[in-house]
Amino acid sequence: MKNNASLHEIGKILEKADSVLIFPHVSPDGDAMGSATGLYKALTSIGKKCAILLEEDIPEYISFLPFEGYTKDQNIIEEPDVTICVDCSEPNRIPSRVEAFEKGKTRVCIDHHINPEGYGDYYYIDEGTAAASELIYTLIDEMTWPMDEDTAVLLYAGIVTDTGGFRYSNTTASTHRIAANLIEAGVNVNDISVALYQNVSREQTLAEAMILEKMDIFADGKGAISYVTLEELDEIGASPDDTENVIDRLRDVKGVEIAAFLKPKGNKVKASLRAKTYGDVQKIATTFGGGGHKKAAGCTIDGSVEKAAESMKNLIADSLEK
Amino acid sequence: MKNNASLHEIGKILEKADSVLIFPHVSPDGDAMGSATGLYKALTSIGKKCAILLEEDIPEYISFLPFEGYTKDQNIIEEPDVTICVDCSEPNRIPSRVEAFEKGKTRVCIDHHINPEGYGDYYYIDEGTAAASELIYTLIDEMTWPMDEDTAVLLYAGIVTDTGGFRYSNTTASTHRIAANLIEAGVNVNDISVALYQNVSREQTLAEAMILEKMDIFADGKGAISYVTLEELDEIGASPDDTENVIDRLRDVKGVEIAAFLKPKGNKVKASLRAKTYGDVQKIATTFGGGGHKKAAGCTIDGSVEKAAESMKNLIADSLEK
Repeated sequence: MKNNASLHEIGKILEKADSVLIFPHVSPDGDAMGSATGLYKALTSIGKKCAILLEEDIPEYISFLPFEGYTKDQNIIEEPDVTICVDCSEPNRIPSRVEAFEKGKTRVCIDHHINPEGYGDYYYIDEGTAAASELIYTLIDEMTWPMDEDTAVLLYAGIVTDTGGFRYSNTTASTHRIAANLIEAGVNVNDISVALYQNVSREQTLAEAMILEKMDIFADGKGAISYVTLEELDEIGASPDDTENVIDRLRDVKGVEIAAFLKPKGNKVKASLRAKTYGDVQKIATTFGGGGHKKAAGCTIDGSVEKAAESMKNLIADSLEK
Repeated sequence: MKNNASLHEIGKILEKADSVLIFPHVSPDGDAMGSATGLYKALTSIGKKCAILLEEDIPEYISFLPFEGYTKDQNIIEEPDVTICVDCSEPNRIPSRVEAFEKGKTRVCIDHHINPEGYGDYYYIDEGTAAASELIYTLIDEMTWPMDEDTAVLLYAGIVTDTGGFRYSNTTASTHRIAANLIEAGVNVNDISVALYQNVSREQTLAEAMILEKMDIFADGKGAISYVTLEELDEIGASPDDTENVIDRLRDVKGVEIAAFLKPKGNKVKASLRAKTYGDVQKIATTFGGGGHKKAAGCTIDGSVEKAAESMKNLIADSLEK
């Protein structure tokens, strides 16, 4: 990625502005909200008029974090000097807010997702960085803007959620050094671990147990598949949303290379796919009109969950035979 | 803890020795074996005659690590210049090897478990450090001994396993800075994550599902208990050892403060206990003649698993009412 501005230059642009409107990506996660709110707090502390513009509610699992300054009011700042999107760099990642973003006298972008074309008037995109929160940390640090305990917690949470707790291959030496600095700035590691990982609802726990119990291991142990119906979820008082992490547990089974999990979504079936090391689930998802990455992909299938699971199992078995 | 030697002084003692025998603790885990083998590799690389003395086999879940130099042969080095225990500082943590340890002309100890009395002729015990592997890293770094990729992997694995993947409250800024240096020395984060976390046997997965499905949430959602019988485990081809991580999953349920899991052990019942934030499970374990820490404890109970679970549930309910 060739950037047209350094973080320091973007810092200078923000310092010159009176008002800044911040845009995290649609379906905001820990890193989107952590980096956006971290930036909001730093800019507010140096006297800027600032807000974070959302198009949805913040998901419940990260709602324990000290978020502030967010709104769905597109007119919160009528004529912002700067609009800045963080943790995203494409109009389709801010679908209902593109017009508001374009209103910025200067439009800026800080992201860590691959986008060779850049976005906005000034952009800094580093796909070698594990989390946008790392980039916001570096920005605040370079500009010597104040960083209070809440800001440290927000950026740390962004890093932890985007690296799977320092487990994914995107975790670098720099990720750990920034985490060290954030701990020194006041992060309580145990508090965040309890809130993020020791907070699984009874319904999620029971749904996961049910789905793992009926998993089908096939293709000499290299494939794993499971599914759930609305009726089964109803029985334990759970909803399809309570099955978010199950796919990782299927992949985590020893010997399994490709895992799939299917659940009802409206009158269709939503399938999630994971590969452990060499498998390519993007190809499989594409067959059903879906997409994603080699190691994590998804698609939507017509028909019943049972039928869809059968087709999916056959395709995975084929893929593992090659 | 007042130490009678610095890590540097212990380094000098090791440099003067011709032969060194290393003692990790009984029931060796990732940190015991990681720190012991890391030290072994560093000392071997500077020309020392060296070995790691064990009294058991290395557990399967860490067997993917590049261990070397270990033996159960107590006469592997007849008259060692130095014997050194790592990740332990008490004779009862090397129960069948105390005599071999005492044979050292100089006896040394490097540990991070609390032991106000020290152990051996020279000891460095720092209970503020998350893992013994951190101390061995610092020792190698201070002495400028060589550290190859395998050594980095061993020490990183020791740190990861003893901090629950940088999640426990023992994780410090220094833990992260050492992890950063180890990644730069060649650790592949993804490889270790896959080996440690994406390697759960089919039997473990099914046992966990079964035990979570029958969990009993009580005391206004603050207590969680489950148990398993030998017959139930038999049905899915699992053994009591396949239930090691279930207790953490019970604690992780939202709202649960104290969790208990019981399973058969010989003709008795083994109970594991966890508290999430303010609970004290050590007290409960002590009632049954067991022990541990406030947040993690265990005990052995006479009678059937069902009966033991009933007594345990009552005691937890009492404890949560206070």
